[in-house]
Amino acid sequence: MPASEFTLIYRYFAALGRGDAVDLSVGDDCALLRLEPGERLATSVDTVVEGVHFPADTFPEDIGFRAVSVAVSDLAAMGARPLGMTIALTLPDADEFWLNAFSQGVGQAVSEYGIPLVGGDTTRGPLSITVQVLGALPLAEALLRTGAQVGDVVYVSGCLGDAAAALAFLNDEWRPSAAAAEYLLQRFNRPRARLDLGAQLLGHASACIDISDGLLADAQHIAAASGVGLRIDPARVPVSPALQGCDDQEQVLKWALGGGDDYELCFTLSAGTSAPQSCTAIGEVVAGEGVDVGMELDFAGGYQHF
Amino acid sequence: MPASEFTLIYRYFAALGRGDAVDLSVGDDCALLRLEPGERLATSVDTVVEGVHFPADTFPEDIGFRAVSVAVSDLAAMGARPLGMTIALTLPDADEFWLNAFSQGVGQAVSEYGIPLVGGDTTRGPLSITVQVLGALPLAEALLRTGAQVGDVVYVSGCLGDAAAALAFLNDEWRPSAAAAEYLLQRFNRPRARLDLGAQLLGHASACIDISDGLLADAQHIAAASGVGLRIDPARVPVSPALQGCDDQEQVLKWALGGGDDYELCFTLSAGTSAPQSCTAIGEVVAGEGVDVGMELDFAGGYQHF
Repeated sequence: MPASEFTLIYRYFAALGRGDAVDLSVGDDCALLRLEPGERLATSVDTVVEGVHFPADTFPEDIGFRAVSVAVSDLAAMGARPLGMTIALTLPDADEFWLNAFSQGVGQAVSEYGIPLVGGDTTRGPLSITVQVLGALPLAEALLRTGAQVGDVVYVSGCLGDAAAALAFLNDEWRPSAAAAEYLLQRFNRPRARLDLGAQLLGHASACIDISDGLLADAQHIAAASGVGLRIDPARVPVSPALQGCDDQEQVLKWALGGGDDYELCFTLSAGTSAPQSCTAIGEVVAGEGVDVGMELDFAGGYQHF
Repeated sequence: MPASEFTLIYRYFAALGRGDAVDLSVGDDCALLRLEPGERLATSVDTVVEGVHFPADTFPEDIGFRAVSVAVSDLAAMGARPLGMTIALTLPDADEFWLNAFSQGVGQAVSEYGIPLVGGDTTRGPLSITVQVLGALPLAEALLRTGAQVGDVVYVSGCLGDAAAALAFLNDEWRPSAAAAEYLLQRFNRPRARLDLGAQLLGHASACIDISDGLLADAQHIAAASGVGLRIDPARVPVSPALQGCDDQEQVLKWALGGGDDYELCFTLSAGTSAPQSCTAIGEVVAGEGVDVGMELDFAGGYQHF
């Protein structure tokens, strides 16, 4: 690691590296982390690229918070306990103001999720951030995509479509009220990974995924992995008051069903099992394949980065 | 994960995900890995960017092999046993030929190092590859940078300067013989992470680092972390026959002392301890600070990416 890179990382990030599971943080060839006896490691990696995953004029503080949330959301979707993370940061130049604000946002996520930053790499290039998350799960348990059973009920947490509506607003495609705009931008820039919900579902939900690419696309992953069909009632998909106030409810439905970036959880529970608070039953698991919403949709489900 | 991204990853990489420690590989929100009882996790992340870390016309097969080697080298430097890795790949477009060749190179590294590819992310953007490696170490052991003691002997593995000489050749700064050129390009494009040596040194070396930024820069990290000085005799720094044949031996010395990308190990052993094969004693640990090579050098030690 070059000296200046080293200095940058130390100045801004070293304070974020402490945690119960951390034996050794930034500063050697590897970080060292401990799992508890009877646990195994859960890991996932997510890259966000400027202009692809967030607009070029996004505040660096939001970029930092959001990049961590996107990655931590995968731990939530497995029901894993956060252990630590690394960040590989590619930057056009070593802008101290940018780095300071970015590290503030990362620091807020470190506190919110209790996930120390234990390592990283900085390179020069067009802005992108890769966050690798490390979590722990009991050896015998995990929230997988594969366990949905015919007869199970399909749930989602929170409200859907907010992030897609925020992006449409940023792209001047519609104009929400000032209060709605503030709420929606917050939802896009500051998504909350549902770690507590994931932990609560562990051992109970038969399948789970986080909604990063849109409800239909992600529900489709559960259907395919579990070898079942999902029947979802669009009228039951929860949307926020900000979107309930939108004139074009057909557009709202598209955002809620097809828009990505909400980072809520979609999961299945056996019928009769009570769902955690602020989760909504939206359908059921049926024999067959694919996701059926009972209507024709004139949009492709989910983001396509390529 | 978008559908097409999913398909790409599956087509090219899914076969690389099997391993003894792997409970679950690519295909869910996280991969799941097992450590043995009494082990802890070692992790590191490295990004390589086209035009910064490798020339734009590098063969994709070499890019793949090299990106993995660079990251695995950090496991070697800690003495860790490889468990698995993830790759975050940012690509300008989904070129099937490129991806096929790249995955061949990754596959060769997976075999060579016994490190399965358990997860990944692909995004659109200027070419860069971030590899996160996961390894295992006994709870009480690790090769750190902090343990060098006054009186210890300083060693390096293999030969130094080859990668820097190869880059100089690629930049038309000198012209080696055809045989030397072939050897040097191989050393740059196909660096070998010294996993076996790291494992052999675990419990014996007092400090260790991999030479990614140049001998002087990396030796300086050992000196600073251990609170000692390192006295290195430039005449004892091993160079390959390809470089011994170069007319400009002053330039060779600069490559060997200051050039990065060789991914050999620099380590310290207490005096009287015998060193593993193909390692060379190049100096000693002394009271004080910094790295003393007994001469003035007119170049900065190590790469500066910023």
